[in-house]
Amino acid sequence: MNRRSFVGVLAGGASGLSGASVPRIGPETIEARLRGLSVFGRAKDGTFEQGVSRVGYSDADIAGRNFVLNLMREAGASTRVDAAGNIFASRSGSDASLAPVLFGSHIDSVPSGGNFDGDLGSLASIEMLRLLHENRITTRRPLCAAVWACEEATFGSALNGSRAVAGKLEPGELSRVSRGLTKSEAIRRIGGDASRLEQSQIRQGSFHSYVELHIEQGGTLAREGVPVGIVDGIVSIDRYEVVVTGFANHAGTTPMPDRQDALVAAARLALAVRDTVTGEPGAQVGTVGQLEVSPNAPNVIPGEVKMTVELRDLSSAKLERIAGKIKAQARAIASETRTEIRFSTVGRNVAAMAAPEVQRAIAAAAGKHRLETRHLPSRAGHDAQIMATLMPMGMIFVPSVGGISHSPKEFTDWQDCANGANVLMETVMALAS
Amino acid sequence: MNRRSFVGVLAGGASGLSGASVPRIGPETIEARLRGLSVFGRAKDGTFEQGVSRVGYSDADIAGRNFVLNLMREAGASTRVDAAGNIFASRSGSDASLAPVLFGSHIDSVPSGGNFDGDLGSLASIEMLRLLHENRITTRRPLCAAVWACEEATFGSALNGSRAVAGKLEPGELSRVSRGLTKSEAIRRIGGDASRLEQSQIRQGSFHSYVELHIEQGGTLAREGVPVGIVDGIVSIDRYEVVVTGFANHAGTTPMPDRQDALVAAARLALAVRDTVTGEPGAQVGTVGQLEVSPNAPNVIPGEVKMTVELRDLSSAKLERIAGKIKAQARAIASETRTEIRFSTVGRNVAAMAAPEVQRAIAAAAGKHRLETRHLPSRAGHDAQIMATLMPMGMIFVPSVGGISHSPKEFTDWQDCANGANVLMETVMALAS
Repeated sequence: MNRRSFVGVLAGGASGLSGASVPRIGPETIEARLRGLSVFGRAKDGTFEQGVSRVGYSDADIAGRNFVLNLMREAGASTRVDAAGNIFASRSGSDASLAPVLFGSHIDSVPSGGNFDGDLGSLASIEMLRLLHENRITTRRPLCAAVWACEEATFGSALNGSRAVAGKLEPGELSRVSRGLTKSEAIRRIGGDASRLEQSQIRQGSFHSYVELHIEQGGTLAREGVPVGIVDGIVSIDRYEVVVTGFANHAGTTPMPDRQDALVAAARLALAVRDTVTGEPGAQVGTVGQLEVSPNAPNVIPGEVKMTVELRDLSSAKLERIAGKIKAQARAIASETRTEIRFSTVGRNVAAMAAPEVQRAIAAAAGKHRLETRHLPSRAGHDAQIMATLMPMGMIFVPSVGGISHSPKEFTDWQDCANGANVLMETVMALAS
Repeated sequence: MNRRSFVGVLAGGASGLSGASVPRIGPETIEARLRGLSVFGRAKDGTFEQGVSRVGYSDADIAGRNFVLNLMREAGASTRVDAAGNIFASRSGSDASLAPVLFGSHIDSVPSGGNFDGDLGSLASIEMLRLLHENRITTRRPLCAAVWACEEATFGSALNGSRAVAGKLEPGELSRVSRGLTKSEAIRRIGGDASRLEQSQIRQGSFHSYVELHIEQGGTLAREGVPVGIVDGIVSIDRYEVVVTGFANHAGTTPMPDRQDALVAAARLALAVRDTVTGEPGAQVGTVGQLEVSPNAPNVIPGEVKMTVELRDLSSAKLERIAGKIKAQARAIASETRTEIRFSTVGRNVAAMAAPEVQRAIAAAAGKHRLETRHLPSRAGHDAQIMATLMPMGMIFVPSVGGISHSPKEFTDWQDCANGANVLMETVMALAS
């Protein structure tokens, strides 16, 4: 029997609010919202199935942000953009003295990404506010839905908006350049102000808790047919930028032994990353995802390569050990190829554990909707891992078909999307009661 | 004793013209001309020493072309831009029934290139016309100086203007896209018209001969202290575009064994190119100079890599054998990495031999200037190799300091530049007499 068929028999569902019933979000509604957002960053003449490129701080991102700001206003919420460009939609509670419950996600995507990563949690959060507004339901605690600025990696670092509110930007990060803009200029484009970033910081205790609904992005839930995942922790992610410096010279007239080819060195390093990561037991992963060659012409020996190295595991110690092995190999490669290889750490997100009380609230909410759950770690980074440093955090996962993500082929059944939205709503209502 | 000091004792030099003396080009003049052109494509606030990015069809190229067109008009020549965007400056001879002598080079550069490659031969050719104009010297044959459009590789192929006049564009080449423009559109930008390309074709016999002055781009002349090289042939160049197709997926949630990482496959292929090329004796070279990753984000497994493979040797048969070995290894890599690797040939320039009579004219011209010469092959491609299919061809090389080229560090002593210009002029005067 398909576990999801249970959902159909629920009418109104049980409520975390004493007396009032929690309204339901239907699959058609969540599909309509996701399709509405999907046009911003879609290729010309593209379709929903061809995915989206809504890179943080881009024109497409700005258009998508305006779309969600309008949805928030239609949901009767009061909206605010902070100095880092994060968007907040607030709704009063019956007791203004209590700390609000915070929930949300992001709407930026990787280049050529899908329409679910971040979008689902963001739009479900806003839809929840709309339902409460239409049904004139007031929670005890205030509610606040967040759409975090630029969650995906750009300028070498991810979780850009959430790290700003936690005061976790790296030194010099604001002057890094990507796509011709400094990060400060990029933040200004989306309505922020890098010179006032400290004003965006969230103090410990100013929110009650944080809940984020997200697609799993891995294949566990889909493979096991479990509709709801309760995240027990988020893996560590270490990200390095590597610059390989050789010497650009003519590709015809420079004999092979005389070359200092930065791309040959970079190729060896990319393979060393893979071999080192797979060279010990465990589920750790390592990726060279970005690589840029200079001057990048068919008839010029590459003089410089910039590349990223990203390592993920639940154990920070294991990541440090693997990075050490990779750096040792880089030194040997540099020596053998007569190039220089420099590593700089551009991001280090230590593992973040979900709060037991939020995990219990999610489990109870899923139970009210008669949805089977399982606990699992998140192997992807999320704004939630930053929120975990400021308040009790929990995450709800829904199945990703085939485990595919960061790809136009990313997909989650609309019923699974709706289930996740309803569990988010039920969980937030319980935490806010 | 420095062989170059001989030059100082020459006054006027001997002439290929009966009776008249050939005017001299001084090092200060050639330096001034090269510095004049160098500002187009120079980085903002850059210096001559920081090189130039005057990529064919770019705004910088267009500005540089206008600069040389003006120099040509000041030299009293009649100018013409053909349908491929090649620039010609013509000067009448005393016998209009004779085929003109053609000479010239190019002014486009690789990205982050130097200020000598192409520029020297182009500006020396125009300076020669200016001197003849000022000194009211008329040759017997008409003269024609050419600045070929986009000699360096773009749209995957080099020698773009000269191949057009020889009718050697590849099928489909005009619709290839680079930097957001089709090649047809790029040609229109520089005043050409791709729909009339056949009108640009040069017929066999319509010119007497072709001479090109160029920096060596290798280290032979500089190492041996020989001021003038007489090229006896230009190597074969085979250029391939390779597309590696994997599957873009999330860099955190996709286990290592499940990946189809296009960059891992591309890295192995880049090393296979190097290992195969160096795996047999000989002076052949092979380069992966251009590589682009998609989607190119730190947290996404690369789904596609486009890269170039370029092979050069005097023996076309050796190049075919090496390409065959590389393709065999690519098939193994594709299978082992579960990617697809497709090769397409984007350029194939067979070796071109210089005509003995033009080589003899160069040797005689150098002799008149008491400059030592040596014969050597060109390991770089040149428009001259295309001209060799249409008329007797010869090339004059001058020393490249350290053999460095396609780099801002490219440099040739001003006296060597002037020597080359004077040998060019003397050679052309002899051929035109």
